[in-house]
Amino acid sequence: MEEIYFDNAATTRTDPEVAALMTHVLCEEYGNPSSLHSRGVRAQLLIERASRQLAAALGMKRGKGRILFTSGGTEANNLALFGAADALRRRGSRIVTTSVEHASVLESAKELGTRGFEPVFLSPGPDGRIPVDALLSACSEDTIMVSMMLVNNEVGAVQPIADPAVIREIRRRSPHALIHADAVQAFCKYPFSMPALGLDMVTVSAHKIHGPKGSGALALAEGARILPQLFGGEQQNRLRPGTENVAGIAALGLAAENAFSHLEENRAAATAVGARVRERLSGGKGIVFHSPQADCSPFLLNLSAVGYRSETLLHALAAEGIYLSSGSACSKGAKSHVLAAMGCPAAEIDSALRLSFCKYNTPEQADRFAETLQRITQTLRRSN
Amino acid sequence: MEEIYFDNAATTRTDPEVAALMTHVLCEEYGNPSSLHSRGVRAQLLIERASRQLAAALGMKRGKGRILFTSGGTEANNLALFGAADALRRRGSRIVTTSVEHASVLESAKELGTRGFEPVFLSPGPDGRIPVDALLSACSEDTIMVSMMLVNNEVGAVQPIADPAVIREIRRRSPHALIHADAVQAFCKYPFSMPALGLDMVTVSAHKIHGPKGSGALALAEGARILPQLFGGEQQNRLRPGTENVAGIAALGLAAENAFSHLEENRAAATAVGARVRERLSGGKGIVFHSPQADCSPFLLNLSAVGYRSETLLHALAAEGIYLSSGSACSKGAKSHVLAAMGCPAAEIDSALRLSFCKYNTPEQADRFAETLQRITQTLRRSN
Repeated sequence: MEEIYFDNAATTRTDPEVAALMTHVLCEEYGNPSSLHSRGVRAQLLIERASRQLAAALGMKRGKGRILFTSGGTEANNLALFGAADALRRRGSRIVTTSVEHASVLESAKELGTRGFEPVFLSPGPDGRIPVDALLSACSEDTIMVSMMLVNNEVGAVQPIADPAVIREIRRRSPHALIHADAVQAFCKYPFSMPALGLDMVTVSAHKIHGPKGSGALALAEGARILPQLFGGEQQNRLRPGTENVAGIAALGLAAENAFSHLEENRAAATAVGARVRERLSGGKGIVFHSPQADCSPFLLNLSAVGYRSETLLHALAAEGIYLSSGSACSKGAKSHVLAAMGCPAAEIDSALRLSFCKYNTPEQADRFAETLQRITQTLRRSN
Repeated sequence: MEEIYFDNAATTRTDPEVAALMTHVLCEEYGNPSSLHSRGVRAQLLIERASRQLAAALGMKRGKGRILFTSGGTEANNLALFGAADALRRRGSRIVTTSVEHASVLESAKELGTRGFEPVFLSPGPDGRIPVDALLSACSEDTIMVSMMLVNNEVGAVQPIADPAVIREIRRRSPHALIHADAVQAFCKYPFSMPALGLDMVTVSAHKIHGPKGSGALALAEGARILPQLFGGEQQNRLRPGTENVAGIAALGLAAENAFSHLEENRAAATAVGARVRERLSGGKGIVFHSPQADCSPFLLNLSAVGYRSETLLHALAAEGIYLSSGSACSKGAKSHVLAAMGCPAAEIDSALRLSFCKYNTPEQADRFAETLQRITQTLRRSN
């Protein structure tokens, strides 16, 4: 039975080429980048190369801004939120974010709320997007940070900070604010340029683009000043001390270069798969699509098969070799806070399925998924 | 020219078997441990296996305590210090540590000093060890944490917390304190059992034992309660959220199992290399050994060739394919705070060399190092 892996927003298979680079670094170029001898220098050069690869994929200009390598998206989001809050404490207390962020932004913002800051959690419309007017109204003079996903991780909605005109207006209203985009689901999947948008901080993660888990980064625009959240050695200009994960960093760089250079082709592949799922399931009894048709990442497709519990469907599909999720993997099957914020009825939330695609998926897999889902729901209906 | 790598305290070569396991996990067992389907379950089982391997190498009993996986030793040390301080804030403010800790403990303790805590930095004797009476005198009723290396990373001195009687006495004097050992240079190199010693928290790192960079852990004894320093998903019981670095964790587990099962044999190999260096250089003009003869890790040998600057010697040795360091890699060649705390004269600090061995090193390499060092110093002397 061929496996169908539609859980690529949770994590992806590491490309063999990327894994081979890691093995090379681990076993041959294993120097500590802080060592003064040539093994150290060569390791440092590997990090600088990865920095350039990431900067290129983010549209950053050479020598402008910097990349801080982290242990992944969660650490990068924590560093963005706490690092900016600590740096801008004297400028104000408001932090504008949304109720549909990843847990690593949501929980960090809530924690900042206990430390004297005032987080504001904006609600999305039924399409999963934060309304532009609500966003701009929240941006006050004393706002020190705006943090928002570029692409929502559960439904795929592209958020308004993907529009440079919106960012310009945020900046006009909140001149001291650092603007942060959690781009974990957007990086190398949704075309954007960090400087063209005018973002100050961008979070990326390797394991969503066929790189390894445990490797991510926070890109900082020139002039964006944050304070470190880890204390230790001289690494990364003391902004993120600790011996660098050289193999993971090199892997992130290569994964980004590969994904960025095939961005349009990978989007086309995902679009074809998602379109086929929609085509095959549209009009089906109880089928509701939560991902918007417009302004949505083609890599994500969220739907409900109302009347059937997500968990039941996931297990039945997994028994047939089809892997997907009910929402963010990080919430371990808890009910979706994103669909709830979008105003979906409980019956839809209870039956939500998140399909997330990658370059390896095909329309034929979409066919088999749709047929299997229909068969499973029929069987369940009869047995009730 | 055969390379001689005597910088294993900075980082080690990843064993091919460990790298092969990582490739397998990255490319075949790439599930997200939080995913509910079988790929997720299998990834979670890999983490649990690594937990058991680490627990075994630490002497922890099954089901007692827990392993928190981190991005390395720096994050684990930060988590221990800030996590314990946050949890015990109401019990007191004193934190007992030493002036010879790794930067990730030193700088964390200093930062805690700015947050209302009172760190005490104990000084070592000339042998690099903290005197037991000074340690015990510092342990007051309101001490909430004692943090100390088991084995110093620059000279190899074994610290008094390696003695269970000392730990018992610390606990009698400071009943609320959590006792933390930075065991990065001791884990699988110096034989100890976490429960037999009575330690509450132990930091370990993969890349010092032929595992990858970017993977470490904080082991917590049963009942040791700390507060998280990262905020996000449900992973690791919310004590350390973020998608787990499954490949790095599996690699840490395997590296620990391998190193622990060959601990005595690896120590014997390192002892032979260090003894040969001492034998060949002893009595040489200007040669001073900083590593104590007793209670010292055989994996570390710190010495000075007085009259020759460390950097000059390091570069000349590197040109002959011999790699070592002047101290902690994390301080990027800055002067050793450890030797300074031990009261070494400036001339010795300026000319310090840290040799650090591993199972791959041989006495023949020690011979070549000694001969090369003698040749280099002769040449430098003539050219002066």
